[in-house]
Amino acid sequence: MSIEVDYRFPAGAHAEKLAKVIAVGQTVGSWDERWAEREASFRERLGQVTAIQTQDDGRNVATIAFPEANVEGDIASLLTMIFGKFSMAGVGKVIAVRLPLDYGTQPKFGISGIRSMLGLDDRPLVMAIFKPALGLSAADHAKIMAAVAPQGLDIIKDDEIMANLDSAPTMERLKACREVIDRTQDQTGKPLLYAVNVTGRADELITKARKLVAQGANALLLNVLTYGFSVLEALARDPEINVPIFAHPALAGAMCGAPNHGLSYRVVLGTLMAHAGADAVLYPAHYGSLPFEPAAEFAIRDALRDRNVFPVPSAGIHPGIVPMALRDYGQDVILNAGTGIMDHPQGAGAGVQAFFAALAQAQPGQKFVLENIGDGPLRSALEKWGVGE
Amino acid sequence: MSIEVDYRFPAGAHAEKLAKVIAVGQTVGSWDERWAEREASFRERLGQVTAIQTQDDGRNVATIAFPEANVEGDIASLLTMIFGKFSMAGVGKVIAVRLPLDYGTQPKFGISGIRSMLGLDDRPLVMAIFKPALGLSAADHAKIMAAVAPQGLDIIKDDEIMANLDSAPTMERLKACREVIDRTQDQTGKPLLYAVNVTGRADELITKARKLVAQGANALLLNVLTYGFSVLEALARDPEINVPIFAHPALAGAMCGAPNHGLSYRVVLGTLMAHAGADAVLYPAHYGSLPFEPAAEFAIRDALRDRNVFPVPSAGIHPGIVPMALRDYGQDVILNAGTGIMDHPQGAGAGVQAFFAALAQAQPGQKFVLENIGDGPLRSALEKWGVGE
Repeated sequence: MSIEVDYRFPAGAHAEKLAKVIAVGQTVGSWDERWAEREASFRERLGQVTAIQTQDDGRNVATIAFPEANVEGDIASLLTMIFGKFSMAGVGKVIAVRLPLDYGTQPKFGISGIRSMLGLDDRPLVMAIFKPALGLSAADHAKIMAAVAPQGLDIIKDDEIMANLDSAPTMERLKACREVIDRTQDQTGKPLLYAVNVTGRADELITKARKLVAQGANALLLNVLTYGFSVLEALARDPEINVPIFAHPALAGAMCGAPNHGLSYRVVLGTLMAHAGADAVLYPAHYGSLPFEPAAEFAIRDALRDRNVFPVPSAGIHPGIVPMALRDYGQDVILNAGTGIMDHPQGAGAGVQAFFAALAQAQPGQKFVLENIGDGPLRSALEKWGVGE
Repeated sequence: MSIEVDYRFPAGAHAEKLAKVIAVGQTVGSWDERWAEREASFRERLGQVTAIQTQDDGRNVATIAFPEANVEGDIASLLTMIFGKFSMAGVGKVIAVRLPLDYGTQPKFGISGIRSMLGLDDRPLVMAIFKPALGLSAADHAKIMAAVAPQGLDIIKDDEIMANLDSAPTMERLKACREVIDRTQDQTGKPLLYAVNVTGRADELITKARKLVAQGANALLLNVLTYGFSVLEALARDPEINVPIFAHPALAGAMCGAPNHGLSYRVVLGTLMAHAGADAVLYPAHYGSLPFEPAAEFAIRDALRDRNVFPVPSAGIHPGIVPMALRDYGQDVILNAGTGIMDHPQGAGAGVQAFFAALAQAQPGQKFVLENIGDGPLRSALEKWGVGE
């Protein structure tokens, strides 16, 4: 099977010509009679323009089929081929990539594996983010953990900005939090995943990830786009990294946010993440704090779930949006809140309680009516953050 | 010293508000009285909006100073901080990043080191690219090498699309070409660098790079943006990788090409590459085949040379542009041609001769006049590709 890519060009751009430039220039390039004996070899490797369609808005979408033999089965060589040099050719946006099913790296855990680790197969998962993002000590992290873990929180993650800093070195954060996790699990029987942000230059990062797992990290967080897809793939294929990897979308807007340049969010946060071995992928929710189109969100959701990858709509999530999340996602979703848990008026523990109360009381697609909610953490949350949309 | 970043917002955007969102949201975030005892720690880590200037075109540029203590001294944690989540916030482009001098990774070789390897301190270097990009065998590469090496070529590189493919596995290309390089050097005394494209998932890539160097690779090519800055940094800091690293800009347009999103070419191909350990960086020349602004090109050039990194203006380079390249670059430049050497009417060897003839005869900034050029490779090249600009 070949690799199919849809490129969208603005109205007025010479789509046929540009598509030809891609099909040839991003594969073999030109040749002359000196290489006549290699003709067959070249032809096998050329891209083919298989369709050019004009949209209602006048923009054109060209589809190009690339031979799978041109790339290594990873994301980096794929990106180099489909958009490497051509990305600098002016305008044109990659809006879809269709890969063979077996292309790339499978998640080790994904939806089913994460559910199995948590012993939960019947509801959305609730995830928190340590906040404030910088300036807390490892002991502060443990203090937050002690507030949220006993409330039955499923997952917590570092803020993506929290690197291995003097104020709270990664290994110390893990150690301090792991004690709380173990103690809580002894008491409640409920496991909690802590996705530790793994950072560093590629070689150090991989070594550090192994060490974190060996020291008890039961999940990892990776800023895939600032470190590189090749780093995610290395972790996902590493037998010592036998924990789920949560992929953070930091920097995605730099390559996905523009109308006529780069790649679509669906491609980067959906297709490529899902073929690079992520177990769960964070991305902006359309009812959150970042401007994001519902269509983009749902395209990411579907690309992820097609490969058993957990969708994690994020940014500005609070209990008020739970009914909409249930409408849009059903059960296979991770509800991920930072300040929406940490800044709850009665504290982070109440923030977790508010989410579980919301899950218990929500009807999919039916906004909470404040007057119908009894006093308690959920009501406080709705009073603070509203009832969404 | 802090890290200063300039963000440009379109006319009409609320620059002051957005700048504040970045300074706070990309560092500590909000906090309340519960963390009163951490107040000092938070304040130390907040970004500061130090200037907002309105340009003549109505766009606003906000400058934000970030504490260096928030990041790890690498590019990935820097990118996560300065533009990670905010990149998804709508519009806003990073147009300049000013880093402390000692921030990041120094090139092992750079301009002076590459000159020293080649024993050349007094002229621009001439570099070729193997073409066609795909479909040649390792033996074909050796055949091309045998045509160009005896003509005194300084450097040759793989096409960036050429990964480790069955048709010409990387190690076989190296082995076949290395024999020709050694034989030629025995005869002529002149060394030639072959920048081998190193690919793979991050861990494999680093291992492969070490193996390539051990097997005689005297330079490496890396698609930094598709593999990740963290991979470049790992290679640049690896004591076994004691050869220059040529950084290719594949995918740069996806994050730099849009007017109001992403980061400027100067930042990505200049500042960040120069602080990530690249020895030489390729980027589009404004008189080449890609649409590129002279100002962007020269900003990259200066950012690289400030740190002893070799600028390699590329794409559509042929002998006719040599006078302009001398005007714009003087001696510290690598003239990098693919088809501009390989597709010379008298063959690739003549393509190299044409460049050296151009260097011998060119006056900086004075276009060649075809009638003044005697018969030979240079004249054939000028007849085919013109006299530039």
